Amino acid sequence: MFGHEFRDKYFTLLEDGVLSVNHGSYGHTPTPVFDKYVQYIRNEYAYPDRYMLREQLPEYTEALQLISDKYLHCDYHNVALVENATTGVNTVLRSLKFNKGDRIVMASTVYGSCYNTVRFLAKRIGIVPVVVDLPYPLEDEEVVARFAKELPGSKLALFDAITLMPGVRVPFEKLTKLCKKHGVISLIDGAHSIGLIELDLGTLAPDFYVTNLHKWLYVPRGCAALYVNPQYHGEIQTMPISHSYIDEDVEPIVDDSLISKFHFIGTVNFASIASIKDAIEFREKTCGGEDAIAQYCQDLSFKSAKLAIAKWPFAQLLTNRHNSVIPPSMVNLIIPFKDLVSHYQLATLLDFNNKEALDKAHDAIDIMLMDDYKSRAPFLFHNGEVWMRFSCQIYNELSDYDYVTNAFGHCLKKYFGVTPTLKL
Amino acid sequence: MFGHEFRDKYFTLLEDGVLSVNHGSYGHTPTPVFDKYVQYIRNEYAYPDRYMLREQLPEYTEALQLISDKYLHCDYHNVALVENATTGVNTVLRSLKFNKGDRIVMASTVYGSCYNTVRFLAKRIGIVPVVVDLPYPLEDEEVVARFAKELPGSKLALFDAITLMPGVRVPFEKLTKLCKKHGVISLIDGAHSIGLIELDLGTLAPDFYVTNLHKWLYVPRGCAALYVNPQYHGEIQTMPISHSYIDEDVEPIVDDSLISKFHFIGTVNFASIASIKDAIEFREKTCGGEDAIAQYCQDLSFKSAKLAIAKWPFAQLLTNRHNSVIPPSMVNLIIPFKDLVSHYQLATLLDFNNKEALDKAHDAIDIMLMDDYKSRAPFLFHNGEVWMRFSCQIYNELSDYDYVTNAFGHCLKKYFGVTPTLKL
Repeated sequence: MFGHEFRDKYFTLLEDGVLSVNHGSYGHTPTPVFDKYVQYIRNEYAYPDRYMLREQLPEYTEALQLISDKYLHCDYHNVALVENATTGVNTVLRSLKFNKGDRIVMASTVYGSCYNTVRFLAKRIGIVPVVVDLPYPLEDEEVVARFAKELPGSKLALFDAITLMPGVRVPFEKLTKLCKKHGVISLIDGAHSIGLIELDLGTLAPDFYVTNLHKWLYVPRGCAALYVNPQYHGEIQTMPISHSYIDEDVEPIVDDSLISKFHFIGTVNFASIASIKDAIEFREKTCGGEDAIAQYCQDLSFKSAKLAIAKWPFAQLLTNRHNSVIPPSMVNLIIPFKDLVSHYQLATLLDFNNKEALDKAHDAIDIMLMDDYKSRAPFLFHNGEVWMRFSCQIYNELSDYDYVTNAFGHCLKKYFGVTPTLKL
Repeated sequence: MFGHEFRDKYFTLLEDGVLSVNHGSYGHTPTPVFDKYVQYIRNEYAYPDRYMLREQLPEYTEALQLISDKYLHCDYHNVALVENATTGVNTVLRSLKFNKGDRIVMASTVYGSCYNTVRFLAKRIGIVPVVVDLPYPLEDEEVVARFAKELPGSKLALFDAITLMPGVRVPFEKLTKLCKKHGVISLIDGAHSIGLIELDLGTLAPDFYVTNLHKWLYVPRGCAALYVNPQYHGEIQTMPISHSYIDEDVEPIVDDSLISKFHFIGTVNFASIASIKDAIEFREKTCGGEDAIAQYCQDLSFKSAKLAIAKWPFAQLLTNRHNSVIPPSMVNLIIPFKDLVSHYQLATLLDFNNKEALDKAHDAIDIMLMDDYKSRAPFLFHNGEVWMRFSCQIYNELSDYDYVTNAFGHCLKKYFGVTPTLKL
């Protein structure tokens, strides 16, 4: 049912010849959802006064209810919609009252944008950034133990549900519990999570959790959900601060305060929010539900890794004892570069101590994959290795990973040259 | 050339029967520009990797150049694109380094969202908000004199180019010069300005200026330009803070720093930015240029006020000695409520000391205009008067203002009832 036939029917926005194995970066939207999206934009323009005054709040509230009931499993009064995960994390970090010397704990795998926000707070307010080094592969217990060392006495901990690159699952449930134990505010960057892993925020009850809806849930860009624990409905403010500002010392915080604050904070394109229901309907009716999607993608992700390892026997799947770091629908390969040199008889070596040379090679090959092969698999050069991430989605088939691994080999040969007689 | 025939040809997104005299609130986009907008969204979805890596930055830079050359008249390196004026003002206020006790001077007519951002800073940092009362109608000299009293010793002054309601032009050029004289940072909320009044930011050289492109320039929502004086390219940060963060103590600030910082700060809908060139082309080629637009709209705005005053002889145009408060394309009427009572023989009086009753009446009549007459003219009850704003655009004709003034009369009679025999 899924695969290329499905793609040619429902993911027709993709240009002919584009073979995406990179759903994780920006997501792709099914055409029936996109068509509705354009219709919603047209509706906003048909009578803007009516849309803004009559329709926007009910549309927003309906979307909150849907994702809260079906995916986040929490009271929709605790959810706000923002543009993307970066905005969500910034919304929290720029709202809370920090004092000079407050410690903010993060993993070394933290998303760059969020790290920069912390750097800014360090500069402006004097908070103290504390980085927990996570040299993957790691067991979950090690991740937890490394955080446990730094949490006591800290103000806030920022950690991922699934990190970006490599794409690994983090034991965020255990870390949330540890935060509660130590009285540390938990802020979870779940950019990759809704539509990918099961969430139960009502039970977990972190302080803050943000997840992009435009990645794995197929909602048009950019749309994200921000969970805010009820105890912070007063302290949290929108970004930008707007008409809807509430000073909790002046006005009471009630059930609807978060909705009042966040539903309209400026003139933007609201159509992604309206499209949430259509993305969910597409998943249920056209795809056959969450389990069908998850099963296909997870199955394909293991097969894609197997295929790559059959081609590059020296490559390894990034995993741990119980495979707990592998998120459904994404896999990471670790490929020693010296073995690639030998395998493809590359003429030029790469100096892993020369950051400039590494960046240059990375960018050239990245662009070559994108332009010449129309199939971009995110990769990085790291510690003498290539780390490569595959995203697996319902429009992918196993042959896609055959194609992209071959393409990567071609790019290496083009960039580094080939010495037919050289054997390392 | 302009008027209803033009509307029926180029503003076909408007629903049949909607008669807009409220361009100022959200703007309307011509259909040819909107069609391009949808095409740009499709292009983003055709191959997101390529769009984000190859196309987004050139598209952004081209848009900067166009509006800087043609409208802002300043070096495009000093301009950033943000979502709307609220975001622009927040970007500035949340980037600058304030200390406890710093005074921020604002007019009493400040946009509510911006005032709230200042309130937040007062709470978090302890800045001191200073409000300059502007009881319109006022001569420009009075506005300047009132600011002059408060500027010395202040850190920043926030003032409008054209205020929202009433829609009056502010002598922002003179205020900017006064700020320079007193060493006060000037932050100009020009939400209503590009496409409406001529700007020369290169010569004026304020510290910060923001203007919505989606209002009077016909660009799809939400898109705004933020001018940043070169001396602040280091201190200004994006909102949210993102990948592109630059710590000026670590990295040098160069010509392109503002572009590097602002062009991509998260996954959003970028298509408004791509549409800027089409909005400008529409204005030049289809409308015959800025002068043609300005002349039609300004002429219509005076005629619309005249028409209303012919109907309500007790009404007054909000103006001053040289008509310097009247922005092209918007007019404000001041209508004593007791005269409306007499004119329409209203049965119920309105207690202007009862805020709850005022709000209730306002909202009911506002909704009635919008729902029953499909023509919403923003108004407010103020000091025993009705203040009403007309926006005049190239799709409007004089009969639109006849329609909306009649509609307003009908709404008053419906809401307050009629006493045929009562004469006040």
